[in-house]
Amino acid sequence: MQYSPALAQLISSLRRLPGVGQKTAQRMAFHLLEKDRAGATELARALEGAVSAIGQCKRCRMLADAELCPICAAPGRDPAVLCVVEMPADVVAVEQSGSFRGRYFVLLGHLSPLDGVGPEELGVTQFEAILLERAVREVVLATNPTVEGDATAHYLAQLCARHGVNASRIAHGVPVGGELDYLDEGTLTAALRARRGV
Amino acid sequence: MQYSPALAQLISSLRRLPGVGQKTAQRMAFHLLEKDRAGATELARALEGAVSAIGQCKRCRMLADAELCPICAAPGRDPAVLCVVEMPADVVAVEQSGSFRGRYFVLLGHLSPLDGVGPEELGVTQFEAILLERAVREVVLATNPTVEGDATAHYLAQLCARHGVNASRIAHGVPVGGELDYLDEGTLTAALRARRGV
Repeated sequence: MQYSPALAQLISSLRRLPGVGQKTAQRMAFHLLEKDRAGATELARALEGAVSAIGQCKRCRMLADAELCPICAAPGRDPAVLCVVEMPADVVAVEQSGSFRGRYFVLLGHLSPLDGVGPEELGVTQFEAILLERAVREVVLATNPTVEGDATAHYLAQLCARHGVNASRIAHGVPVGGELDYLDEGTLTAALRARRGV
Repeated sequence: MQYSPALAQLISSLRRLPGVGQKTAQRMAFHLLEKDRAGATELARALEGAVSAIGQCKRCRMLADAELCPICAAPGRDPAVLCVVEMPADVVAVEQSGSFRGRYFVLLGHLSPLDGVGPEELGVTQFEAILLERAVREVVLATNPTVEGDATAHYLAQLCARHGVNASRIAHGVPVGGELDYLDEGTLTAALRARRGV
């Protein structure tokens, strides 16, 4: 299919969005141009605004358009508990659970020596600076339950021990509302190992 | 979740794309800001470029950034066969089948008196102007096989008859590679009615 150049360019740019293939990009382009040109202009401005304004929170490395992200800047959050996650999306997931009122630290990855990701790339210097403030009593290690995530948690737990700070790991087991039948062996093994008296 | 203002704005703008909800918009925003800022800038420029450059082809009403769309401007297309479709995406679908070498006319909708869409809104004046050029021998009516699409095809067929131009309707029946078992009754009825001698 021979598109007009500006249309072809729009479709190929939309394909850079994650999970968007040729067909979806085409549908999006036609939708914007036929029915929502105001939306297209708004999206263009939001993209430009975000790219120029958003950097990292100086304290927790979350995406932020000020020096501190809204969570680090909020006075109501408990400075004694620090939740360590791999990615900004994980902060959103924990926030949406509504069960955590402390602050966060975002590693922006996990230890992966083969890819050249060591402690320095994960902002461990910044993390230690927070521990040295002596306000944190507990570090909750909420990295993913993968080999790399577990290794990263293990490394950070040792670091916390050196600073005399308690470290905990979020629990792994059967998801609430899930069915044993559909679970993989790894999760079931973890759930059985971490069983508790009733 | 309390996002930075620029991030919140980006997520809400991404939700204007069709089929994109809160979760997907969030994933897209994080992906662009963490891993593909160049892509975000490129997309912003492509959106602006498309909104300002793309209008309608003067002849066939397809999206185009010049006076004529690439298909109307191509010298190799057969001017004797004109395929009438409802939307620009339908042009893409027919083009991708690779089995049509004529030109198109895009109605940008279908007759729908309740929504105030009459012949004028569908560009029937432009359509008649093409018929009056006396170059078209056959009009292929490829509107959707819905009540509105069929009514629109019927209306256009009468118009073609008045101008002494042959009109045909694309065939409706069992999709190639499909299974009878999974088909709805309407399609099967159409397939049986339109059966042909072997």
